[in-house]
Amino acid sequence: MSPRLRHLTTLENLPRETIERLLDRAEALRDACAHGTRKLDVLAGRTVLNLFFEPSTRTRTSFELAARRLGADVVNFDIGLSSTSKGEELFDTLHTLEAMHLDAIIVRHKQSGTPDELVRHAMSGVSVINAGDGNRAHPTQGLLDALTIRQHRPDLENLRVVICGDIRHSRVARSDINALSALGVKEIRLCGPAELMPDADEVSKGSRHDDFDEAIEGADAVIMLRLQKERMASIELPDEAAYFAHYGLDRRRLARAAPGCLVMHPGPINRGIEIASDVADGAQSRILEQVGNGVFVRMAVLNEVLAR
Amino acid sequence: MSPRLRHLTTLENLPRETIERLLDRAEALRDACAHGTRKLDVLAGRTVLNLFFEPSTRTRTSFELAARRLGADVVNFDIGLSSTSKGEELFDTLHTLEAMHLDAIIVRHKQSGTPDELVRHAMSGVSVINAGDGNRAHPTQGLLDALTIRQHRPDLENLRVVICGDIRHSRVARSDINALSALGVKEIRLCGPAELMPDADEVSKGSRHDDFDEAIEGADAVIMLRLQKERMASIELPDEAAYFAHYGLDRRRLARAAPGCLVMHPGPINRGIEIASDVADGAQSRILEQVGNGVFVRMAVLNEVLAR
Amino acid sequence: MSPRLRHLTTLENLPRETIERLLDRAEALRDACAHGTRKLDVLAGRTVLNLFFEPSTRTRTSFELAARRLGADVVNFDIGLSSTSKGEELFDTLHTLEAMHLDAIIVRHKQSGTPDELVRHAMSGVSVINAGDGNRAHPTQGLLDALTIRQHRPDLENLRVVICGDIRHSRVARSDINALSALGVKEIRLCGPAELMPDADEVSKGSRHDDFDEAIEGADAVIMLRLQKERMASIELPDEAAYFAHYGLDRRRLARAAPGCLVMHPGPINRGIEIASDVADGAQSRILEQVGNGVFVRMAVLNEVLAR
Repeated sequence: MSPRLRHLTTLENLPRETIERLLDRAEALRDACAHGTRKLDVLAGRTVLNLFFEPSTRTRTSFELAARRLGADVVNFDIGLSSTSKGEELFDTLHTLEAMHLDAIIVRHKQSGTPDELVRHAMSGVSVINAGDGNRAHPTQGLLDALTIRQHRPDLENLRVVICGDIRHSRVARSDINALSALGVKEIRLCGPAELMPDADEVSKGSRHDDFDEAIEGADAVIMLRLQKERMASIELPDEAAYFAHYGLDRRRLARAAPGCLVMHPGPINRGIEIASDVADGAQSRILEQVGNGVFVRMAVLNEVLAR
Repeated sequence: MSPRLRHLTTLENLPRETIERLLDRAEALRDACAHGTRKLDVLAGRTVLNLFFEPSTRTRTSFELAARRLGADVVNFDIGLSSTSKGEELFDTLHTLEAMHLDAIIVRHKQSGTPDELVRHAMSGVSVINAGDGNRAHPTQGLLDALTIRQHRPDLENLRVVICGDIRHSRVARSDINALSALGVKEIRLCGPAELMPDADEVSKGSRHDDFDEAIEGADAVIMLRLQKERMASIELPDEAAYFAHYGLDRRRLARAAPGCLVMHPGPINRGIEIASDVADGAQSRILEQVGNGVFVRMAVLNEVLAR
Repeated sequence: MSPRLRHLTTLENLPRETIERLLDRAEALRDACAHGTRKLDVLAGRTVLNLFFEPSTRTRTSFELAARRLGADVVNFDIGLSSTSKGEELFDTLHTLEAMHLDAIIVRHKQSGTPDELVRHAMSGVSVINAGDGNRAHPTQGLLDALTIRQHRPDLENLRVVICGDIRHSRVARSDINALSALGVKEIRLCGPAELMPDADEVSKGSRHDDFDEAIEGADAVIMLRLQKERMASIELPDEAAYFAHYGLDRRRLARAAPGCLVMHPGPINRGIEIASDVADGAQSRILEQVGNGVFVRMAVLNEVLAR
């Protein structure tokens, strides 16, 4: 058995067995919930702290619910979001929190690599869970996306998955690629305009496409990424309508995918920019299932790093 | 027996029996608390979320305390208060929260009708409780005001109640009128300057007065409304001193009411604008009892919509 | 036995016996925690509210953790931090919170004396705990500093303690002086530039020094205070480098103290301004122990004022 994780900062290099253990546990928690279990007490007496340097009500709430449903206490440590806490100041905050005898710190930071720096500087047994760092990793999102796909298409080694949009700046894309390739997905296709594609030496897995019609052909799942509207001006992107025409997911385009192709998005969605409303709300959309799986995956991760 | 409520968005059209059931339950909870009961576990394992698009620390705290005292978990979902979340964006937020398996959403929004829109768009069994929408409804305030009056003057069918101030913009006034008329209060008198009175076709119950001395004559309870100071300039109201002279509650005016007339206010009060300090703090003031009843009423409502 | 405290607003005039009882209890809690006790239920069903008019994530979190580890519920009442709530408005807030049946209010306010005003105006049995008021008192900081010193140097009547920095504006210094003199510490030395020393009639205990090299000679503990950077311009302080040269704690200076002299700081530290990094992180630093003791001291205080 692969060793128990003490931290989760990235899915990169995680053995397939570890990822599968987390997904299996999330699935078991989902089943228990479906049968009426609302709350467990496996983490009773443990304290989890949300340390968000970037605002994210959705992800923070998902972690908070996950921790409470395992019986843990949750404290939100509200960093002034203008604060660019880094270096010594960041580590002093870490050590102060550790001194208060916390069990886990869930961190989001705009600087890639911050969660690993916290792991390196931690002095106590505190567990660090990455809730998103820069454009590098969002491991629980990668896991929940993998869980959602596996639930509907368990034959992963036969699957074609498309990830479309601003891959260059997306930690979601990177964690998805890590999870799906570890699980042996047959084919990962990355699609987006050239200026939003990552450097090839940084993201080496997956085929690259700039024609979405071509990329989606025969796909079993398509993960649309959120376009940061504020980015469109700064890097000379086409306007929203032109972007949608080239890289938006609408019904016509979805029809080119395999029948029943899963439609996914990490949310919150920009309707009419990266995805058409009728597709987001349509029968093939798994977007809300992703949200539900997010809570179970985070419960599984908290249980993994904190259970004795 | 009137059917159990699944949501509470307004008191309009609620049967008297339902309102009385909620008040009776609140009263039973108040009695239990007076005898030392601090916490129940009837909602253990349930999760309640505060979704406040308008800031209101008092009301949010009251709901939070109510939920916790029933054993529920409470999550505060901090919407950026500048956000004007509406339409699709609002419903996407709703669906995201539903997907996290919440049991109740307590919502405050500046747009009238938002809670009902959430009910209409809800896809799961989540309960929606209105904590105030626009100028339309604040049902738990209406219930707590009715409870406070009933406690001191159980013979409601003989009572004269005055509501004075900015009725036009007041959701409190509307919910009070609904509660009190459903309970058979003899007479409701609405009093305020013409520009702060609601249109007659929108608020049809109650007699209308612009002379407060006349309106308060023989009253058994007087509910003073908070004047939004920022409104005084925009709609050419007289200045604060002139407003107080005409529509403020002072000792002289209170003496015109029936002996022991209850003095009420939803808070926070503007001393010297709508109410004199010595009246607000005087023997007839029920303002703090209202606050206490607020917690019990909210416990009763949460119990109503969430208990199995 | 000295009577049980119902409030804790200052350490001034507290009998030595009371302070020792609180420190002993904090120590017992620390021992229990070291042996694996994570959570008690002595305050189950009680509700504690954080009322912070000045932002302080660290102190608020410490109190929140302390209350939860005793089984209490905690509510954060988020006062708009621009609000200068005072006078009637402040007392109305107090009475509103009391009406919601809270057990304790933990208050921080920039105005000295506010916690005592709350005690005077409280109408119910609510306990008030001061989490820092103006430059007057920060009693739990005074207790945690005393606990940290006592733990390493139980022979208090033989100790020399230096407090260095902006004593004039420091509530920490005042509460430290109160705690340490009540416990019979042999010598308290206050050190800082003249413009940052308090008036002699206001702070009468302790010897006064403007030469840090002289003040630290033979000291058993040195408590460095945080310099408010924004203050340096306004009262014509030397720049940061000059301040550090005169009043910063570095290795050379620490060598003048007694062997094993405890290095303390209430945090957050300004590295290179009041303390050198290698000293803050060195073997003699007790800064993180102070943070840990903070939680235990706050548990002891909450237990003192709330236990039946």
